[in-house]
Amino acid sequence: MKKVGVAILGLGVVGGGVYEILTEKKEYFKKTQNLDITVETVLEKNVERALARGVNKSNIASNIEEVVSNPNVDIVVEVMGGTEPARTFVLKALMSGKSVVTSNKELFAKHWSELEEEAKKMNVALMFEASCVGGVPIIRVLQDGMQANEIQSIKGIINGTTNYILTKMAENDADYETALKEAQKLGYAEFNPTADVEGFDATYKISILSSLAFNSKVCIENVYREGITGIDKEDIAYGKSMGYTLKLLGIGKRTDGGIDVRVHPTFVKNDDPLASVNDSFNAVHLVGDSVGEIMLYGRGAGALPTGSAIVSDVIFAAKHSENYYAPFKNNEKGNKETKFVSDFVSKYYIRLCVKDEAGVLAKISGQFAKGDISIKEVKQMTSAESLAEIIVITHPAYESAMKKTIEKLTALDEVVEIKGFIRIEE
Amino acid sequence: MKKVGVAILGLGVVGGGVYEILTEKKEYFKKTQNLDITVETVLEKNVERALARGVNKSNIASNIEEVVSNPNVDIVVEVMGGTEPARTFVLKALMSGKSVVTSNKELFAKHWSELEEEAKKMNVALMFEASCVGGVPIIRVLQDGMQANEIQSIKGIINGTTNYILTKMAENDADYETALKEAQKLGYAEFNPTADVEGFDATYKISILSSLAFNSKVCIENVYREGITGIDKEDIAYGKSMGYTLKLLGIGKRTDGGIDVRVHPTFVKNDDPLASVNDSFNAVHLVGDSVGEIMLYGRGAGALPTGSAIVSDVIFAAKHSENYYAPFKNNEKGNKETKFVSDFVSKYYIRLCVKDEAGVLAKISGQFAKGDISIKEVKQMTSAESLAEIIVITHPAYESAMKKTIEKLTALDEVVEIKGFIRIEE
Repeated sequence: MKKVGVAILGLGVVGGGVYEILTEKKEYFKKTQNLDITVETVLEKNVERALARGVNKSNIASNIEEVVSNPNVDIVVEVMGGTEPARTFVLKALMSGKSVVTSNKELFAKHWSELEEEAKKMNVALMFEASCVGGVPIIRVLQDGMQANEIQSIKGIINGTTNYILTKMAENDADYETALKEAQKLGYAEFNPTADVEGFDATYKISILSSLAFNSKVCIENVYREGITGIDKEDIAYGKSMGYTLKLLGIGKRTDGGIDVRVHPTFVKNDDPLASVNDSFNAVHLVGDSVGEIMLYGRGAGALPTGSAIVSDVIFAAKHSENYYAPFKNNEKGNKETKFVSDFVSKYYIRLCVKDEAGVLAKISGQFAKGDISIKEVKQMTSAESLAEIIVITHPAYESAMKKTIEKLTALDEVVEIKGFIRIEE
Repeated sequence: MKKVGVAILGLGVVGGGVYEILTEKKEYFKKTQNLDITVETVLEKNVERALARGVNKSNIASNIEEVVSNPNVDIVVEVMGGTEPARTFVLKALMSGKSVVTSNKELFAKHWSELEEEAKKMNVALMFEASCVGGVPIIRVLQDGMQANEIQSIKGIINGTTNYILTKMAENDADYETALKEAQKLGYAEFNPTADVEGFDATYKISILSSLAFNSKVCIENVYREGITGIDKEDIAYGKSMGYTLKLLGIGKRTDGGIDVRVHPTFVKNDDPLASVNDSFNAVHLVGDSVGEIMLYGRGAGALPTGSAIVSDVIFAAKHSENYYAPFKNNEKGNKETKFVSDFVSKYYIRLCVKDEAGVLAKISGQFAKGDISIKEVKQMTSAESLAEIIVITHPAYESAMKKTIEKLTALDEVVEIKGFIRIEE
């Protein structure tokens, strides 16, 4: 039976989950995988936390050199998060001939090329299933289950925190702040929620997933990003009544104009499979030219779901002798031949607060026509005091044209405020 | 760049899809996979069909010996279906040191052990992603994405024909024969539909999937099987009104009493994710002890979706030098230590046609109580002429107790007929 030594860098929530699975299932993995996996060492500054997890004092390393020089360590699991010192530690592990398994989406989105180069040089595995969508094996599916396909699009609910907040806003007619506080109380959102609610986390993930889907490095600079902090509960309710559910989507598309990758709040049809993915659940919808539609659904975060992905990488790395990473030649700036869209196309939902006067609708419609934006649907609602609200749903239009039209609309005397502006995918 | 030679045995619908993908995407696979894949030869009795696909006459083999003795062939794709001559051909390929990729669920469910033994002996790959759920990479997910988990249950809509028929029965209030005819007209059902509608196809698939999920060979003899030919459209409508949708499910569960594997028509809750999987779409729902719930959804059949799975196996086999198959030691009778349930537990829906007399409900309820079966819900509807219909929904009960109670109920003077009997999963 093959013996496999593992080091864990960071024994927080996810690291704890990995430690628990690897130690509690040692016999199970011997029986089912023919592998004898031992956690040889952990690197964790907070020694008390490591001891509380049941780690022997003699197995707690005091620095990274101790870990990478340990000849019993075959695979280093990096679950510290952030770019430094994670980047340095991972590079040291690779340079020492250790395979690396990481859940670190920020590290991977920002330094993939550098890490991949080192892994190739040393002929070791570099694996990152846990970096995207937690327990759902989306990386394995993209790398080993969809190779026959030219992927047309990938759309996903890939951040549990924002999905929880948007679900609660919709279910309880709660405003953003209230829903955020509830998410924080339940541990679904961090004390400083910026990385999640501003879409950075989803940006890292869609950058990684799109790179695999389109066989070309998609840097985070190539991803349009917009978070959910500006979302008004009124728009969620109006959207629902018009047949739409609001989700923060990561979107990657192969279009005639190039690759189009974005993260932003998005209305999807109420009967879209993504619309019913609620709370902290995640889902990814793919379209391949051979396979057609595929959807994967599951837990995107948490100690054991993410631990499940990491341990499956550890087992894969232990079993496959050759190195293992994305097959495209990339560099930090992406493939030179890869074209990205500079101006994407979308449908839009716009809510305007206007003076309740005769002819206002004609004036607004005229502005859309001037901007060459075709309107699909208009709804007018009388609001308080001599004010009205108008909701416009457009046909597909260029983002630049839409933004210009919004500017022109704002300048109109009759328009008091643009209250909502949300993109639609259907 | 690695050169890879492929032989295709059988150029029917799926074989044609494989040929199309491999030839049309030759350049794409060079670029994205660093593999130069060539279809070296095809074995197809119907030479006209092969020529019509664009195969050169010189590349059409006239017998299996020609294929397996061709030194340019590295991987043999078997897409003929049925057990013979597929079994003999696959064995010959393996014995000649060729890797084999197959979509043949019947062959695999019946002869897995024999094929695996030969593949191990010759150190070649034996891959079967396309045998279950077409384009959805469920085998890859079970083998390489879920190893950290002890799988608790697997439930799936794994036969597109029956799902199409049941969807049409529900949507159009059509009876079984009408829906079957429509499915045949559209090519979703074969002229002789037995393999699909009697649940044989789903049995092969759940046998394969459960073997992987539970790390132990589940033979088709271990699978309880029941098809959809006896389904009455009335029960679909009554079920719907009581919150249930009817699906033909493949079910595998790890229970205290052993492994429980079945195929039968099943009511699931209307809000169960499986309930909204319609037409010829497939879906598999898994529960793992680490990862929790996961669901995969996509096309279960068709030339290109199934071709997608086969080509992804071809690419995987070409890239991974070592052999690749399920890691458990099995034999045709299954692992000796594996325990299977002899009497499974389920909830039930029963529809009885009874004489519309005072006290009949009490008498029927009494019979359930005597059988130690707890009733969850009863609904009584007056039907035509002095007859009434009673629907009983039970709490979980042993199948043997339920069957005995059905016998006793049938013997009652007041019971005219047991009209519906459907198991419930929730």
